[in-house]
Amino acid sequence: MAPLKVYGNVFSTATQRVFACLHEKNLDYDFINVDLSTGEHKQPPHLARNPFGQVPAFEDGDLKLFESRAITLHVSYAYQANGTPLIVEDKKMSIQGVWMEVEAHQFEPTTGKLAWEVVFKPMFGMTTDDEEVVESEKKLEVILDVYEARLKESKYLGGECFTLADLHHLPNLQCLFGTPLKKHFEARPHVKAWCEDIMARPAWVKVIQKLSV
Amino acid sequence: MAPLKVYGNVFSTATQRVFACLHEKNLDYDFINVDLSTGEHKQPPHLARNPFGQVPAFEDGDLKLFESRAITLHVSYAYQANGTPLIVEDKKMSIQGVWMEVEAHQFEPTTGKLAWEVVFKPMFGMTTDDEEVVESEKKLEVILDVYEARLKESKYLGGECFTLADLHHLPNLQCLFGTPLKKHFEARPHVKAWCEDIMARPAWVKVIQKLSV
Repeated sequence: MAPLKVYGNVFSTATQRVFACLHEKNLDYDFINVDLSTGEHKQPPHLARNPFGQVPAFEDGDLKLFESRAITLHVSYAYQANGTPLIVEDKKMSIQGVWMEVEAHQFEPTTGKLAWEVVFKPMFGMTTDDEEVVESEKKLEVILDVYEARLKESKYLGGECFTLADLHHLPNLQCLFGTPLKKHFEARPHVKAWCEDIMARPAWVKVIQKLSV
Repeated sequence: MAPLKVYGNVFSTATQRVFACLHEKNLDYDFINVDLSTGEHKQPPHLARNPFGQVPAFEDGDLKLFESRAITLHVSYAYQANGTPLIVEDKKMSIQGVWMEVEAHQFEPTTGKLAWEVVFKPMFGMTTDDEEVVESEKKLEVILDVYEARLKESKYLGGECFTLADLHHLPNLQCLFGTPLKKHFEARPHVKAWCEDIMARPAWVKVIQKLSV
């Protein structure tokens, strides 16, 4: 079997999302670095893999995919018997699906914006827009109040097991936990416990180790 | 069997997405209007259905869901034998999944912003931000170039059949086709043919009829 291939960048949260999934599944993969600093992602070879010129892209034999959440869903279904089951069945999957959508449409836009302002802009020598941060922090608090209520009812967002609905949050969570914004997560006991739990998963710890090499 | 229930608003594009799916599946449902003008969606009864205070919410017996794309995915799997098959299998589903993510993360943010500026703001007596429109139009052109290339290869975004990957686009498409922004879709022959095809589907025509009552 041709090995799985991830084309991406270790600092890209979307690439990290795919790594997290592959490690939970104990799957070997080849990692091909795409040099974002030279604009390699906007050149024809990478555009053939992802027409939007973004990372990651993914290959499983002759199947070529992009969009991190489509990749993790493919891996979870195609390698269902490997490692951690990241999807559940029937009605439970419908509930997991709700929380996967919540991550994509509520959590990601807000935390992605905050990560950009507070982590990446300073990294690139750009100036943080403080008004934008205050605005997004308010939205984050509303989202985390909903998460706190949900995590009082069930150990994980999708139900009693760790699934993709939790995993998809890891890269942005990790990013914001290195900033003062961590306080919003820590102020909510069930959110705090959930963050500590999922960020300590061995598969995620391995992903983080890639960043410090 | 208790009938399916949609709590929403006929002018909400997310509610329309769920209607489109239910009509493709020939499923009966009760529609319960949520009056957005009085803030009914921010009151406890609706917050119990959708903790983010948005429409739609959905009930299938004792299963309670929200987030329009989670609802359409549930309906497509749970009622696989009814009406149009909106999902495919195995590797083909992974490809469909990529284009569902493209809709959610590329098409929706840009067309949602354009619909807000060009359709909804004037409707609510607010002033369109022309700079925002120009900026979003540029993004839309890049997205539609990718769609044009994709639709040269396959009749629909997910493959040779109409699926959720196409259906999820309908509400924002319909919205923008009533504005001068229509020109961007019409300038690309494969995109134009695809739009005309999916907007003429009988299930979607029924959804549109709800708006004019």
